[in-house]
Amino acid sequence: MNRLRTRFASVAALALAMPMLLANGYEDVDPRIGTGGEGHTFPGAVAPFGMVQLSPDTDTGCEIRECYGHAAGYRYDDPTIQGFSHTHFSGAGHSDLGDFLVMPVAGETVPLEPGDPKQPGSGYRSRFSHADEIAQPGYYAVTLTDPGVRAEMTAGTRVGVHRYTFGKNKAAHLLLDLRSSLYNYPGKILWSSLRMRPDGTVTGSRTTRGWAAGRQLYFAMRFSAPVKRHAFISTEKDVKYKGFQAPGRGSDAVAERSGQALVGRLDFGTLDAPLEVKVAISSVDEAGAIANLDSESGGFDAVRSATRGAWEKALSAVEIDAPEPMRRNLYTALYHTLIAPSVAGDVDGRYRGPDNAVHQADGFTFRSTFSLWDTFRAEHPLLTLVAPEQANSDMVRSLIASRKASPDGILPVWQFHGRETWTMIGYHAVPVIADTYMKGIGGFDANEALDAMIASATYDPYGGLGDYQKLGYVAIDREPEAASKTVEYAYDDWTIARMAEKLGRTDVAKRFYARAGNWRNSFDPKTGFVRARKSDGAFRTPFDPTAINYGSDYTEGNAWQYSWFVPQDQAALFRALGGDAKTVAKLDAMFEYDNSKLDYSHAEDIAGLIGQYIHGNEPSHHVAYLYAHAGQPWRTQARLKQIVDSQYKPTPDGLSGNDDLGQMSAWLMFTGLGFYPVTPGSLEYVIGRPFVDRAALNLPNGKRFTVVTDGLSNANLYVGKVLLNGRPLPRTYLRHDEIMAGGELRFVMQATPNRSWGKAASARPYSMSTAKR
Amino acid sequence: MNRLRTRFASVAALALAMPMLLANGYEDVDPRIGTGGEGHTFPGAVAPFGMVQLSPDTDTGCEIRECYGHAAGYRYDDPTIQGFSHTHFSGAGHSDLGDFLVMPVAGETVPLEPGDPKQPGSGYRSRFSHADEIAQPGYYAVTLTDPGVRAEMTAGTRVGVHRYTFGKNKAAHLLLDLRSSLYNYPGKILWSSLRMRPDGTVTGSRTTRGWAAGRQLYFAMRFSAPVKRHAFISTEKDVKYKGFQAPGRGSDAVAERSGQALVGRLDFGTLDAPLEVKVAISSVDEAGAIANLDSESGGFDAVRSATRGAWEKALSAVEIDAPEPMRRNLYTALYHTLIAPSVAGDVDGRYRGPDNAVHQADGFTFRSTFSLWDTFRAEHPLLTLVAPEQANSDMVRSLIASRKASPDGILPVWQFHGRETWTMIGYHAVPVIADTYMKGIGGFDANEALDAMIASATYDPYGGLGDYQKLGYVAIDREPEAASKTVEYAYDDWTIARMAEKLGRTDVAKRFYARAGNWRNSFDPKTGFVRARKSDGAFRTPFDPTAINYGSDYTEGNAWQYSWFVPQDQAALFRALGGDAKTVAKLDAMFEYDNSKLDYSHAEDIAGLIGQYIHGNEPSHHVAYLYAHAGQPWRTQARLKQIVDSQYKPTPDGLSGNDDLGQMSAWLMFTGLGFYPVTPGSLEYVIGRPFVDRAALNLPNGKRFTVVTDGLSNANLYVGKVLLNGRPLPRTYLRHDEIMAGGELRFVMQATPNRSWGKAASARPYSMSTAKR
Repeated sequence: MNRLRTRFASVAALALAMPMLLANGYEDVDPRIGTGGEGHTFPGAVAPFGMVQLSPDTDTGCEIRECYGHAAGYRYDDPTIQGFSHTHFSGAGHSDLGDFLVMPVAGETVPLEPGDPKQPGSGYRSRFSHADEIAQPGYYAVTLTDPGVRAEMTAGTRVGVHRYTFGKNKAAHLLLDLRSSLYNYPGKILWSSLRMRPDGTVTGSRTTRGWAAGRQLYFAMRFSAPVKRHAFISTEKDVKYKGFQAPGRGSDAVAERSGQALVGRLDFGTLDAPLEVKVAISSVDEAGAIANLDSESGGFDAVRSATRGAWEKALSAVEIDAPEPMRRNLYTALYHTLIAPSVAGDVDGRYRGPDNAVHQADGFTFRSTFSLWDTFRAEHPLLTLVAPEQANSDMVRSLIASRKASPDGILPVWQFHGRETWTMIGYHAVPVIADTYMKGIGGFDANEALDAMIASATYDPYGGLGDYQKLGYVAIDREPEAASKTVEYAYDDWTIARMAEKLGRTDVAKRFYARAGNWRNSFDPKTGFVRARKSDGAFRTPFDPTAINYGSDYTEGNAWQYSWFVPQDQAALFRALGGDAKTVAKLDAMFEYDNSKLDYSHAEDIAGLIGQYIHGNEPSHHVAYLYAHAGQPWRTQARLKQIVDSQYKPTPDGLSGNDDLGQMSAWLMFTGLGFYPVTPGSLEYVIGRPFVDRAALNLPNGKRFTVVTDGLSNANLYVGKVLLNGRPLPRTYLRHDEIMAGGELRFVMQATPNRSWGKAASARPYSMSTAKR
Repeated sequence: MNRLRTRFASVAALALAMPMLLANGYEDVDPRIGTGGEGHTFPGAVAPFGMVQLSPDTDTGCEIRECYGHAAGYRYDDPTIQGFSHTHFSGAGHSDLGDFLVMPVAGETVPLEPGDPKQPGSGYRSRFSHADEIAQPGYYAVTLTDPGVRAEMTAGTRVGVHRYTFGKNKAAHLLLDLRSSLYNYPGKILWSSLRMRPDGTVTGSRTTRGWAAGRQLYFAMRFSAPVKRHAFISTEKDVKYKGFQAPGRGSDAVAERSGQALVGRLDFGTLDAPLEVKVAISSVDEAGAIANLDSESGGFDAVRSATRGAWEKALSAVEIDAPEPMRRNLYTALYHTLIAPSVAGDVDGRYRGPDNAVHQADGFTFRSTFSLWDTFRAEHPLLTLVAPEQANSDMVRSLIASRKASPDGILPVWQFHGRETWTMIGYHAVPVIADTYMKGIGGFDANEALDAMIASATYDPYGGLGDYQKLGYVAIDREPEAASKTVEYAYDDWTIARMAEKLGRTDVAKRFYARAGNWRNSFDPKTGFVRARKSDGAFRTPFDPTAINYGSDYTEGNAWQYSWFVPQDQAALFRALGGDAKTVAKLDAMFEYDNSKLDYSHAEDIAGLIGQYIHGNEPSHHVAYLYAHAGQPWRTQARLKQIVDSQYKPTPDGLSGNDDLGQMSAWLMFTGLGFYPVTPGSLEYVIGRPFVDRAALNLPNGKRFTVVTDGLSNANLYVGKVLLNGRPLPRTYLRHDEIMAGGELRFVMQATPNRSWGKAASARPYSMSTAKR
């Protein structure tokens, strides 16, 4: 289906519809994109940046299956649904969550175990059919065929609402399985509790030893029909010490129970109306969860409607007119970029920080789920264009607040629910803050932010920073993945220098501009690759630029991908490589590398290969744009077509790698519009080529920036010319202020390369060593 | 040594010294009394009702030894000290705590395991000698001979302070072992954490699955010398999922670490001065612990001095002139009655409640460690005479606040650190509140209190209360220990009726006066014993009045002890037994029972036997006084001498049973003064006989009530007469208002019984069925 083409059948109609040219894309989002393959997105209900991600889990627990494939709980190919839980990452490459799994059970027999997916009826899990599924932003529905229950989900910012329609005259039950979790290694559930309150609210808690160790989460749950009977059951075995009997314990109808393996059974009898279950969570305490529950009024339909409105508004940030499947891919991409960083603070402003203590947000909403190694690249830069300024301010304030509460005194690395996981490398909160600040987004104390950035960049115990500060590079004999760390630190350092310069803290700027050149210390002129050095100065051998191994010189990649990571000074890198021609040849060699004999199946995140370009993981994401830095943007244009066509599809397996909390999607969103933030902090976007006929950014400042493509077709691979507000743009980059001013960027496509546009040194994107602007 | 006798060598000197007649007993307290045998007291440092009980643990962990004997961490006979931890119960019969064990280590080798007590040097534990020990209220010192360290402890209300004097030129270290705990069954440590803060404060937390499941406790710790190096080490094995590396983890010098088996090593280098370590705890969070730490100023000597002052003031509530060892026994008893219920709320008023949530105390200090089955008898009544009115108000307010936060909506049963353990039977917060209220102590909402009491007495899921309310007794086929429960509930009910009557809630009073007669439903006229009935009305058979078994008809006892528990209506019981003569004969039979063939060694709490009278456990505690209710107080007088002489000694094994948070000691304190609260809530004390030459109660209202004994000697077993303010007292009870008015109670002792005093019905203590007053 191509709804837009139908709606605007003629150019005349198109003109008439201006300026509300482009339809809102709510109907064009397909949350099931990425739920197959290794996209790791979830199909369930979430509000924009919502705290609750209420979504089906098809199989939880690594005791049953290998974890990676179930990072988001749901795999499109699985035959059964185990239940619906309230927390999920959107596209993470490692996982946790799946908290507070709820499953309806109908009839007299209520199994307490999920059972074997291969043996229907062996437990409470149920078969389902994709034909019965509806997945929309903020709404998910499916029929659980075994109990004969229609299950619907919606979510507000801090609540999830379930609606279960049971068969007539069937006794209705809910199971609440606190044993279920994603990445549920044995011993993960440290403690949990269930409580039936006198007013019928069920509350509870869970402390888990997962990706974030000792993470606490609380919930509060209310029902549209009274709970007639309840049982809070412990299925734990071999408890060495049991303590004394609480009141009523013999019957399991206890007011409260705690333990390491709890399942709650709630009996409702036969119901005349669908059963609605409204659930709020909190990282703080049960009182916080109850307050969050009270903060969002209305039942299922009201919440669904409000969240639909919120999504329509959020998605209206970009209006897209593009041929299918691009329109669907792009709206789904936009949707996926608006899920994280998620709201993580309670309605009263309290939140749990990296120190596992409760803090009070003063004038901002605490947000977490920062997958910064991924999202500093394009996700956060995109949010400065498509999310409200307040949301961007809140993210920075949340980062600063997290640093204050950090036992290590540094900014988040990979944080969720306020808790640090120490996943991936770099101090990439730094470029996020710098980019946000450089773009003029306020609402935070810039000097305090800079202090936090400096603290992160100078903390010796972190990731080889002691050596990095002493030697100018991370030493591979003392710290793994030293090559990747060195080049990423150098870029992060450059963003500190940029921000310090703007703040007038020239001593800091000078110091960190110098550090920004540290990539050279990991660059091997002989091989032309970024490599890891030992503390004695020698590069580590043996060296295989195609090897990908954990704990190697590189992080989830090899020399081919990492040797391009000098976003602050690509020109200098190109000189080191021997000039533009050699650089272009090397870029081509990367894309055209014969990888047919390489096997990267041992590496979870390596997918979406084009030669040695690996689109399924982030280190490659900027590489296709680098031809522009070498004065040959027409090669970028061709590569982008190659990547877009091969790496994105409007199908469950349509993402070539983990969406990584929006980064894979943000890449497509930018690329579809025709430009990409190769160097966040530079205030520039490198121009590629558009994949839309027309698109409009309705900017946070109220301005409107339109992209128009003349001659978009598969044949017209190349940009003939670019007009900004009607005037030819002689350069291959766009400035942030040009977007924010509103206006029109027009691309004229053609079948042959324009080899002269963008060739001049002055026309090329920012590089530190050549920058005069 | 008999210091008093020396000080007041002549009657003349005695007279001259009036009215500051009696010396403060600080020097006469021996905290080591009860640390041997099964007294389960601790010798370490505690302030009056202090939150921190800083005391040596000689052996922790049931993995090493049987738990019961180490309920307070320290056993006098043990040869080694494992460390010093911050929380201990005083005399509990079940246990937990031992939180945050600290041990000094000297020299280059720092073992991380305590090692085997039988193999000196096999770990960090050390040998010690009692000759080197000093134990005083608020101060404990010992020399750890293996590291050659003098260890001193003191404590303020919310802090403990250690002082370690290391040998010259020996490297000083502290170990902080978060794996150590009392009653440390495998799996008890659910989670723990250690954090080094930038200012050198070490903080941490522990969540344990012990007597109170999921109990959280936090600490903050500062040092008089800088920590030069630290290591936070996890000794956990077989961790299934380890997550990602935190900064500096390779070196263990991490800023923060969490896990299930942590030990911290703090290195101070060689020190010129003793090392002081100040530690605060909090049930709320680390910020609470830090605030508690900040709330008490000064170093070791300042805290020690302030706490000595606090103890001198607290102990001045009773001035005692008695022959040794009674003086020492009594002052130590008084000391032991002033330890619990302990302060459990933070300096900012926050505390953790039975719901495991944090609450704010509004205008009172939250207190916990309520061993109510024990302490409702004499400990709480004593506190109304010897502790400030505010402390008694706080206890009632804490009970009411706990009920509000209780998932079951009822008052505490056996609570510590705000958390319920469901240990023992009854709803004995009820008589504590009623007695406090009847005595005119205010500061709480009496109607709210009564509502809480009614809630506890009518909660069907608790301890067979459903049957009790329906049948008039707890049914043994549905609830264990039904006989004990029935008679204790009936007494508790009577206290509700008393309080309701005074409050003018006559409907409540009528209902609960009726319930107060329910003891009859468990009384078997055929055998003359209280017995358990089944739901069909029949008494359970077979019946053996001497059998003591867990889950039997009785709680830690048998028919002999429980058949006397009708404190609200002993007269009615005596009629049921066939009158005074048969009652007296039965009482004598109890004391004179030939128990030589009985073996109760399987029952932890059964100790201190005189026939079937078991002084080491509470059910017998009022029994010797019951002769007075039968009009033969001279028999009480003789029995008390027998009990006092055999059950209390000024030695480590000087308590015949667990001190039970002051109840064993409160019995001695009252008995020593010559009267005892057989029926809390009656506003009467039954007169026994004194064991002091002279004593004075300096009452909370500022009045002074003096007890004087003429002719105290071993030969003068009997009371000849009793004079209240110079007038003969014709009855065998003393009214609470008579004490509170101040004055003098004079006993004239003689060698032969006075068989006429107290014989008249009107002269006998309160019984509900005969009461006209």
